[in-house]
Amino acid sequence: MYRTVTCGELRLADVNKTVTLAGWVQRIRKMGAMTFVDLRDRYGITQLAFQEVAGNEQSKALLEQANKLGREYVLQVTGVVKERYSKNAQLPTGDIEIEVESINVLNPAAVPPFTIEDETDGGDDIRMKYRYLDLRRSCVRKNLELRHKMAFEVRRYLDEQGFLEVETPVLVNSTPEGARDFIVPSRMNPGQFYALPQSPQILKQLLMVSGFDRYFQIVKCFRDEDLRADRQPEFTQIDCEMSFVEQEDILNMFEGMSRHLFKVIKGIDLPKLPRMTWADAMKYYGSDKPDTRFDMRFVELMDVLKGYGFSVFDNAAYIGGICAKGAAHYTRKQIDQLTEFVKRPQVGAKGLVYARVEADGTVKSSVDKFYSPQVLEKLKEAMQAEAGDLILILSGDDANKTRKQLSELRLEMGSQLGLRDKNKYSCLWVVDFPMYEWSDEEQRLMAMHHPFTSPKPEDIPLLDTNPAAVRANAYDMVINGVEVGGGSIRIHDAKLQEKVFEILGFTPEQAQQKFGFLMNAFKYGAPPHGGLAYGLDRFVSLFAGLDSIRDCIAFPKNNQGKDMMLGAPGPVDQIQLDELQIKFVPQKQ
Amino acid sequence: MYRTVTCGELRLADVNKTVTLAGWVQRIRKMGAMTFVDLRDRYGITQLAFQEVAGNEQSKALLEQANKLGREYVLQVTGVVKERYSKNAQLPTGDIEIEVESINVLNPAAVPPFTIEDETDGGDDIRMKYRYLDLRRSCVRKNLELRHKMAFEVRRYLDEQGFLEVETPVLVNSTPEGARDFIVPSRMNPGQFYALPQSPQILKQLLMVSGFDRYFQIVKCFRDEDLRADRQPEFTQIDCEMSFVEQEDILNMFEGMSRHLFKVIKGIDLPKLPRMTWADAMKYYGSDKPDTRFDMRFVELMDVLKGYGFSVFDNAAYIGGICAKGAAHYTRKQIDQLTEFVKRPQVGAKGLVYARVEADGTVKSSVDKFYSPQVLEKLKEAMQAEAGDLILILSGDDANKTRKQLSELRLEMGSQLGLRDKNKYSCLWVVDFPMYEWSDEEQRLMAMHHPFTSPKPEDIPLLDTNPAAVRANAYDMVINGVEVGGGSIRIHDAKLQEKVFEILGFTPEQAQQKFGFLMNAFKYGAPPHGGLAYGLDRFVSLFAGLDSIRDCIAFPKNNQGKDMMLGAPGPVDQIQLDELQIKFVPQKQ
Repeated sequence: MYRTVTCGELRLADVNKTVTLAGWVQRIRKMGAMTFVDLRDRYGITQLAFQEVAGNEQSKALLEQANKLGREYVLQVTGVVKERYSKNAQLPTGDIEIEVESINVLNPAAVPPFTIEDETDGGDDIRMKYRYLDLRRSCVRKNLELRHKMAFEVRRYLDEQGFLEVETPVLVNSTPEGARDFIVPSRMNPGQFYALPQSPQILKQLLMVSGFDRYFQIVKCFRDEDLRADRQPEFTQIDCEMSFVEQEDILNMFEGMSRHLFKVIKGIDLPKLPRMTWADAMKYYGSDKPDTRFDMRFVELMDVLKGYGFSVFDNAAYIGGICAKGAAHYTRKQIDQLTEFVKRPQVGAKGLVYARVEADGTVKSSVDKFYSPQVLEKLKEAMQAEAGDLILILSGDDANKTRKQLSELRLEMGSQLGLRDKNKYSCLWVVDFPMYEWSDEEQRLMAMHHPFTSPKPEDIPLLDTNPAAVRANAYDMVINGVEVGGGSIRIHDAKLQEKVFEILGFTPEQAQQKFGFLMNAFKYGAPPHGGLAYGLDRFVSLFAGLDSIRDCIAFPKNNQGKDMMLGAPGPVDQIQLDELQIKFVPQKQ
Repeated sequence: MYRTVTCGELRLADVNKTVTLAGWVQRIRKMGAMTFVDLRDRYGITQLAFQEVAGNEQSKALLEQANKLGREYVLQVTGVVKERYSKNAQLPTGDIEIEVESINVLNPAAVPPFTIEDETDGGDDIRMKYRYLDLRRSCVRKNLELRHKMAFEVRRYLDEQGFLEVETPVLVNSTPEGARDFIVPSRMNPGQFYALPQSPQILKQLLMVSGFDRYFQIVKCFRDEDLRADRQPEFTQIDCEMSFVEQEDILNMFEGMSRHLFKVIKGIDLPKLPRMTWADAMKYYGSDKPDTRFDMRFVELMDVLKGYGFSVFDNAAYIGGICAKGAAHYTRKQIDQLTEFVKRPQVGAKGLVYARVEADGTVKSSVDKFYSPQVLEKLKEAMQAEAGDLILILSGDDANKTRKQLSELRLEMGSQLGLRDKNKYSCLWVVDFPMYEWSDEEQRLMAMHHPFTSPKPEDIPLLDTNPAAVRANAYDMVINGVEVGGGSIRIHDAKLQEKVFEILGFTPEQAQQKFGFLMNAFKYGAPPHGGLAYGLDRFVSLFAGLDSIRDCIAFPKNNQGKDMMLGAPGPVDQIQLDELQIKFVPQKQ
């Protein structure tokens, strides 16, 4: 060992001990005849003190040596722990310093391309290129420490609940439905390809057929999609499946897991999670992942505002409002900015109507010329608005689209009013998702979750009469407006599965061709089963209060799917392509 | 929940309780008016009893229902726990049975293509095709339960020692040296490719540069190699790295990990591991992974047997013998079979000389006409052979090759004499590997471990004078003749690294081109570091007493790299290839 102690552990009780530390030079401060060096390792920072003592040649030599050090030099130092004159209450080691007796420069360091501090001068690109230096910043390293701890605690909880972690293969086959696969040419089987798994969905269902009863895996999954802000081509799931269970059992089991994580990691006692139907989530929040840290529920205003000659509302298929408590002070400029916000193409509303409730309780709106004070009073009542509140109203000819626009506005108002505190957590289950959603593109009903999802038993008769109304035993866990996990009870009854395929528009032959493999396995005795998967990256980001999952991934890729540090992807030797018998044939543009 | 108890937990104390179980029909035995059904789940087997009671219509109906069940049907049954008349001491639940009150057939099952029993009638191919049924066999499932437990305990130990599990990417870049990479075409970067990692070697060294101090990861690695018996294209490593350590620290840390696993999983107190130099391993066992469950060390016999006119020995560069204790009873036929064994192309010896020590202590050999009784007596002494022992001798003109042949013979004799008990474990460290080995093919010295491995400090002067003699700070953990793990201390000194590259025949430009990326990272302050990696598949196989790693992998691939169950690899749609701008161009044969 190059050290007897780490840079994070010395305290007043250690004074006068001789210790050896090793680490990186964080900072050097020269103060006349004294020099202070902050030595950093993963565990903390310890101050090294150098002072020339008259007549002491060694102290002079050491001071000279210290003055020649540079940032990020790797040192091994031996010295005596001393109490500091001026203590630093910000640092756990701030009561002591090391009176250094010897320095061993283990490695010098070139000047890093950006400062290794929490507040760095490095932009995103340079930090990604030198990610190994970026990871020295304690704010970044802490995210990965958190990730380790969360993954470990997930495993501990699931192990205690009798789950087995089973590794499923990374080299699998291309899936019939879903996103685009990454594919891997096989050298031993020329012209054939493996695919990287989008999820171990089929394999975990097979493990249930195998009687594994309780399976989980923290596992890399892959999707070759064009990358949006918070997507990575490879991401990590906490993938779980259970047998002989109903939806209630799964919700309880994984609510327990979340409770364990919140308790152990954040010290928070999670209350029993509320459950919200998908229908209510859409009705009151315009989103299947409502941010319930704040209320500001939608109020439908069709009855209140239709039929008074305001053609925008009179022709609307949906009119809905939110009440921003205490925001009546919003200036004209602020409201104009909100109007701009909802009119952005990403939101897509045509305009914004507002109504302020003045201090005297009267309502002043942007559509006063169409509405009498009596109607505005009814509006105020419907919105349960009080003096000082601001009512914001959107309308449109497509109810679902308008709700989504209103949802964006609601989130924006939540942010503006400081109602989305990252240190506050609001968790819930969204349940009773629809089985199907209509696809304009395909002109057919599509499975909302996946085609093996079970309908709610009480809705099975609707499969024949009104399939679009059938609700599924499917559920999402939502935290602060983020879907951290989701899953479903699977169909284990062959006849029911056939009917579900039929409604999806598959002939028995097509169903056999697309899903025959799993259906054949089911013939040998499938238990009732169900499961869910959490996005580990998202879960960690939430706990860390990050804006992007990228910051909790050690070596992330950018929006072009590139690892700028490794230079991946890159060219390969012709011989590699020849062995695979493939050729790159650039398409004519 | 479909059950109140599992099939593994009921005992006499539960008699008269009403319970609900769910599981698979393992076996049905009809005995006149009674039928017994063994119901199986992951946790065990519980006997269900059906008996027609005169005048009880329900009992008759249940018996009829039971008689219609088939193997592997999935049932939910409710009934009362009863004490058995004839108990089964082999089963933990063998004292009780369930007097069934209702059966719910959750799913019928087609007749499986092989019997779901530990002793099955299914061959390897059919079991791999229906791996989901093979996994129902408790002997297979137990291997995966063991794997889960070992992986979990590895994590628990390393977490307690302050290691952080950091996920490194699966989509990386092609490595300059090493085995053949699997490559993944990038759609977003046409003509460029990711590679799947052969190991996270470079990334874990970068994490040390980042100050992560103690890293581990249980991680999938990939090699596109022609598959030998015990190789898989994807395999799992326990990959570890530490900073500010010397070899001794790493050996102690991971000896501790092995000790933890042996204690927790097998109940074995592992003694302090012996250490054997690579030179001794080669000298005494002809292998860098000696099976030390039995002694039978090589004795070099050049001094004893050369110069007596037996030209085979007189011309040999190496003559070595092993003493098989108590094997003097071997018949002529058995010795002929051993001779055939060493002459197989896989071993490659020219012939085998033997000498028996008779009951009266005299030596009778196959080369008596060349050697006097006095010389044979010297042989006996050199071999420390006693009455009843069999001495087996190989010779050849290449000492290393002959030692390898003798090693094969030693292992074969160990097996024949029952000295390689799978329930006995002999662990050791092999240390002081050579830095370099000569490559006839490349006509240069090659790194035996990898080019970042540190020489032993005391051997550094030899780099200039006799590089082939330089020993590395490299080490393997060997258990029962299997290399379960290995690693090295890495070079952190830029000058030393340059010298090592020079000896490998790289110009500074070539070194920069091949390894510049890591060397550049080192410029910013690399700590002294080192690590190792265990093969999880091998480690589990050893603990499970398996002959092949395949049996501890849920969904393994065959020798053609195929997953016969999934049908991977397989063809992909033309549109997928078009999007990647690649084309399959079969080579002319």
